Amino acid sequence: MRIVALAGGIGGARFLRGLKEAVAPGDEITVVGNTGDDIHLYGLKVCPDLDTLMYTLGGGIHEEQGWGRADETWSIKAEMKEYGVGPEWFGLGDRDFATHLVRSQMLTAGYSLSQVTEALCVRWQPGVRLVPMSDDRVETHVRITEDGTPKVVHFQEYWVRLHAAVDAEAIVPVGADTAKPAPGVLEAIAAADVILLPPSNPVVSIGTILAVPGIREALVAASAPVVGLSPIVGGAPVRGMADKVLAAVGVESSAAAVAAHYGPELLDGWLVDASDAGSVAAVEEAGIRCRAVPLLMTDVAATAEMARAALALAEEVRA
Amino acid sequence: MRIVALAGGIGGARFLRGLKEAVAPGDEITVVGNTGDDIHLYGLKVCPDLDTLMYTLGGGIHEEQGWGRADETWSIKAEMKEYGVGPEWFGLGDRDFATHLVRSQMLTAGYSLSQVTEALCVRWQPGVRLVPMSDDRVETHVRITEDGTPKVVHFQEYWVRLHAAVDAEAIVPVGADTAKPAPGVLEAIAAADVILLPPSNPVVSIGTILAVPGIREALVAASAPVVGLSPIVGGAPVRGMADKVLAAVGVESSAAAVAAHYGPELLDGWLVDASDAGSVAAVEEAGIRCRAVPLLMTDVAATAEMARAALALAEEVRA
Repeated sequence: MRIVALAGGIGGARFLRGLKEAVAPGDEITVVGNTGDDIHLYGLKVCPDLDTLMYTLGGGIHEEQGWGRADETWSIKAEMKEYGVGPEWFGLGDRDFATHLVRSQMLTAGYSLSQVTEALCVRWQPGVRLVPMSDDRVETHVRITEDGTPKVVHFQEYWVRLHAAVDAEAIVPVGADTAKPAPGVLEAIAAADVILLPPSNPVVSIGTILAVPGIREALVAASAPVVGLSPIVGGAPVRGMADKVLAAVGVESSAAAVAAHYGPELLDGWLVDASDAGSVAAVEEAGIRCRAVPLLMTDVAATAEMARAALALAEEVRA
Repeated sequence: MRIVALAGGIGGARFLRGLKEAVAPGDEITVVGNTGDDIHLYGLKVCPDLDTLMYTLGGGIHEEQGWGRADETWSIKAEMKEYGVGPEWFGLGDRDFATHLVRSQMLTAGYSLSQVTEALCVRWQPGVRLVPMSDDRVETHVRITEDGTPKVVHFQEYWVRLHAAVDAEAIVPVGADTAKPAPGVLEAIAAADVILLPPSNPVVSIGTILAVPGIREALVAASAPVVGLSPIVGGAPVRGMADKVLAAVGVESSAAAVAAHYGPELLDGWLVDASDAGSVAAVEEAGIRCRAVPLLMTDVAATAEMARAALALAEEVRA
């Protein structure tokens, strides 16, 4: 079976670890990773979501933190402070820096981001085929008002420095409108048996991937069922601050509202948490097959159960 | 008093630490640093000699090693090994990487190497004005025969990977012939009261600086006495493998031969080690004032004594 999943960072990576447990030997998983969070720091190209996916699936992630490397050291960060070179708010450990150095060197040498990602995965062996959504530069920017001043900041600045504590007035994936899907993305979607939307951020993770012209259309056109898992449980994001960016696009923080945001044209099936069972009927009325199951990724076994439920719903839709 | 010193890495840096002890308050030291050892690694510009000078004079050097940072960590090097990205033979610690990142980012932004060096020195406060010999790229390459195959390698590869264990057949400071002295270099030499050649490598450190058109000429034309200290003691280099590169330019490893290599046109005074007192007469016959004093930089006090002897010889020449 060929499975395609669109994924952001932490939530997507943890779901995929469960999915790997849930699939049968021989099943192939292609992950289309969000690159809208990418940022240039210290002259290096940093791809937070791709790295979180690689490190999590490849066994190098800092488990408690959810991002960055296990057994990390922070010498460079300390030195940058001494040099007075920022941004101080972004945490890049030394081991993590090595990834960005290798990536940046390869990009400068002329390799594409998908080629670089494939090369990095030779080391990490994530057990999935990891493809960036695009080889073109896309950067999500957020319009805010800070201390009375309207400004536009990089998504990472909004997320990491400001902790999404001010309202996002608009979210713009700069460059997405002219970006092309990376080689293999559309082909993988067209050839898929099942397409999954993990409980990643519907706006700045999955939404950014869908903003690359051709990808949403390919999902709609795909013969495979498209099944998503709600990142909203009981009216609030399970992790992160998805509610802040949902508000920016006029979507309320509820499992049913996110399903409606994706829409029945795109989505064939939708899993909501057991605690949101009350919203199943409304989602189904909107034309999306819906089931309520436990959606808390407390450990790999629980996450694998979620993945099995998603695959089962896909079969139910297909039948 | 305005003192100008030309310097390579470890030997030059240690001498300058002594010189700082030896000078009077208010004396100004300008150091023209060799950049022929510079190398691009992992997409970053690495300036080993400038960094050794900065770290040594700024209190950040790894004392026993002579190069690199104290309290260093090596996470990136370990990661590069995992990624299979070399060269493995060059030791860049994490703290050191921070310097190369800041430098490379500033160079990419359009600052010159001398501007970058000045910016880095804001942190290090080396107590001297540190100027690269040139803002233009110069890289010393070495012609060798390895396993029967003639090849040309970067000086760092010859020095660090091969430990200068094969014969250097030719040493070429690539780019030197078209390089211009960095802003301020010629002016500092012209305005100097004393010019010193520390016991740095006469070929690949001092020699490379002198290979930048205009610098040798400025030293010859300078009104200030030019006094050097022999890096060769008792027929062998005090440290490093200067004998290997001296052989490549047809100079024997002796204090007197190095003085003759610089020549009486350039050199007004020459200090040899007390154990080489027998060569004083020959050097003086060649037209260079010569004294024999202890030249082992065993500690800062002993090195300061050497610096005082050099300054005294300069006064003797001037008188």
